[in-house]
Amino acid sequence: MKILVINAGSSSLKYQLFDMDSESVIAKGQAEKIGLAEGLVKQSSGKGVIEYVLPIPDHSTAMQYVVRALTDAEKGVIASLDEIDAIGHRVLHGGADFTKSEIVSEPIKQAVRENFVLGPLHNPANLAGIEVCERLMPGKPNVAVFDTAFHQTMPDYAFMYGAPYEYFEKYKLRRYGFHGTSHRFVSGEALRRLNKGEGEPSKIIVCHLGNGSSLSAVADGKCVDTSMGITPLEGLIMGTRSGDLDPAALQYIMDREGIGIEEMTDILNKKSGLLGISGVTSDMRDLTAAADGGNERARLAIEMMCYRIRKYIGSFMAAMNGADAIVFTGGIGENDANVRGKVLRELSGLGVQLDETKNASTRGNGEISREGSPVKVLVVATNEELAIARDAKALCEA
Amino acid sequence: MKILVINAGSSSLKYQLFDMDSESVIAKGQAEKIGLAEGLVKQSSGKGVIEYVLPIPDHSTAMQYVVRALTDAEKGVIASLDEIDAIGHRVLHGGADFTKSEIVSEPIKQAVRENFVLGPLHNPANLAGIEVCERLMPGKPNVAVFDTAFHQTMPDYAFMYGAPYEYFEKYKLRRYGFHGTSHRFVSGEALRRLNKGEGEPSKIIVCHLGNGSSLSAVADGKCVDTSMGITPLEGLIMGTRSGDLDPAALQYIMDREGIGIEEMTDILNKKSGLLGISGVTSDMRDLTAAADGGNERARLAIEMMCYRIRKYIGSFMAAMNGADAIVFTGGIGENDANVRGKVLRELSGLGVQLDETKNASTRGNGEISREGSPVKVLVVATNEELAIARDAKALCEA
Repeated sequence: MKILVINAGSSSLKYQLFDMDSESVIAKGQAEKIGLAEGLVKQSSGKGVIEYVLPIPDHSTAMQYVVRALTDAEKGVIASLDEIDAIGHRVLHGGADFTKSEIVSEPIKQAVRENFVLGPLHNPANLAGIEVCERLMPGKPNVAVFDTAFHQTMPDYAFMYGAPYEYFEKYKLRRYGFHGTSHRFVSGEALRRLNKGEGEPSKIIVCHLGNGSSLSAVADGKCVDTSMGITPLEGLIMGTRSGDLDPAALQYIMDREGIGIEEMTDILNKKSGLLGISGVTSDMRDLTAAADGGNERARLAIEMMCYRIRKYIGSFMAAMNGADAIVFTGGIGENDANVRGKVLRELSGLGVQLDETKNASTRGNGEISREGSPVKVLVVATNEELAIARDAKALCEA
Repeated sequence: MKILVINAGSSSLKYQLFDMDSESVIAKGQAEKIGLAEGLVKQSSGKGVIEYVLPIPDHSTAMQYVVRALTDAEKGVIASLDEIDAIGHRVLHGGADFTKSEIVSEPIKQAVRENFVLGPLHNPANLAGIEVCERLMPGKPNVAVFDTAFHQTMPDYAFMYGAPYEYFEKYKLRRYGFHGTSHRFVSGEALRRLNKGEGEPSKIIVCHLGNGSSLSAVADGKCVDTSMGITPLEGLIMGTRSGDLDPAALQYIMDREGIGIEEMTDILNKKSGLLGISGVTSDMRDLTAAADGGNERARLAIEMMCYRIRKYIGSFMAAMNGADAIVFTGGIGENDANVRGKVLRELSGLGVQLDETKNASTRGNGEISREGSPVKVLVVATNEELAIARDAKALCEA
């Protein structure tokens, strides 16, 4: 069984073709700079690398080039689209309408449309990706996998905000959370490593740390809280996002800068976080190098990020009345021993015993707590694309 | 030694006259509805109750009526203002300029003025209170006690926000925290009850829960983190304040409601929190009655408030790598066993063992954790006025 996984952004389209018998990647690639004068399609596979530099006016054209690359006579990996059994699509915002992945039908598409309001940049691109695949591969099942779905098990006291209740009724204002596919994949993998059966009580905290970062509290396999909110701005300090902030700080800044709410929100999303604090970079590796070179604001940015992760871990331990394991994933979580060390070293009072040697040497997957640590610490490589492909396979076989 | 303590708000002026030899209250009262057509001055003491119903155009007039009540021939408590040795003033916002209380001088007043920008409603009223006392009691020392001072020991990674660094440089944007006089008084009292000496290592979490609510993390007697921010809006869900919220939620609401940032911030301060969620009341006693009567949104509001307190306790335990004690204070913290129980019951995994019987019967002061609980839980009655009077006394004697 071959499944194509599509992650359509506003100006890019990433894809991976999976052989689901072995859960291996046959080919992966992306179309970039959709809508700009010069676009780029790049694919790599066992057959070699394919690159097209050419204008990509829209998602439909992007998908046609992807098909061309996949079926290329020399370096392609399939003879025709008939070999693809299903397509799995990442969809950012499922609102409160989706608690799990779904085979796309007209009502599903309508619900995705109705959530444009909650995911105004991503959901239209995600839907475009679905509709292009419907046209190019008629009759093949498309499966929508929602970034918010895993968090839909949160109790009301965790997902509601302290704003007037009417905003929830009128505008669906509430915490939704994101990175759900990663939190689900990683918490599931952690439970397997901990030998916790499906019905067994368990408390896992997942730290998904990348350019965007979020934590989730997963009790008995179900999400009970997460750090992102109605948008991916809330929570941790991220590459360019501020994370948590006094809600009254917006007016304070806007009054002084003479800017409107749209620009303010844009600044908090794109010019804040590690970049805004350090004034140097949003990239953790470059930031660490700057801090090591004596840049005080780079040092501060890293300290702040790690301190807030630590505080969220504590708050989620309180939310679940303890934790069996803390799990690190994402580009930073899987690879940055310095960040993990800063987060974990001062948590011994809460039962976390870090093994410094294991931490220093672990990348991708491993256990970095000491033998007998009351709270285990795992590193798990996330794989959202594989999770999407698995969902597509399961739904198509059901 | 007699000390008068003044808490001047925008439309009220509360006062207490202390006999500092016994630390007892000689008289207390308040002037209300300053600037409105009909004002009220009310004072109670061992000599009886005094009430004046009359217009109070400004703070200067209010203070004159307070003097009249204090020196009333029949029900007054002093013969003349000469008996007052010093005046202690609550000042809301000391910015980063004040780490402790100060005897008022021209430079101190100038610094209070410079922080009008941070406390636009309170600081002008606080300064008015000081200047009225300077005129009415020339030569008597006035002492300014700042609500923010106790929190000035926070490390930079705890007080900085993830917004662009230039806002900190240009506009002093950062976390300041409030209720500092209460957090200091209550954490000090807790250390005494725990028999912790001044130099001894200690970790205390203070939950000040009233109409406004905040938590602080106090390590070795010094504040290391607190839940309120640059304004008192951030943090917990309060009577009418939203507390923490996705910063992008403001634009989301404003776009849909067609309102500006000023109205939005006002709604989050005055029509949100327990009132906004329940739609019924901001008063915890009335809210509890409504919830007991089956009001689902009242139930939700209480659950949300307690859940967030619990999460903040966890985050502050992580911030300090553990806690020796959690301390409840403020109108709700001292008296509401239901709220304390909801917060504490699910923290056994973090070493908190609640004694249900003690909790149910404790009001004002007591210990409500079980014998041998790794984290003790205390109830301490706060007394901000006494703390202000003590500061005034100490500074005048220094």
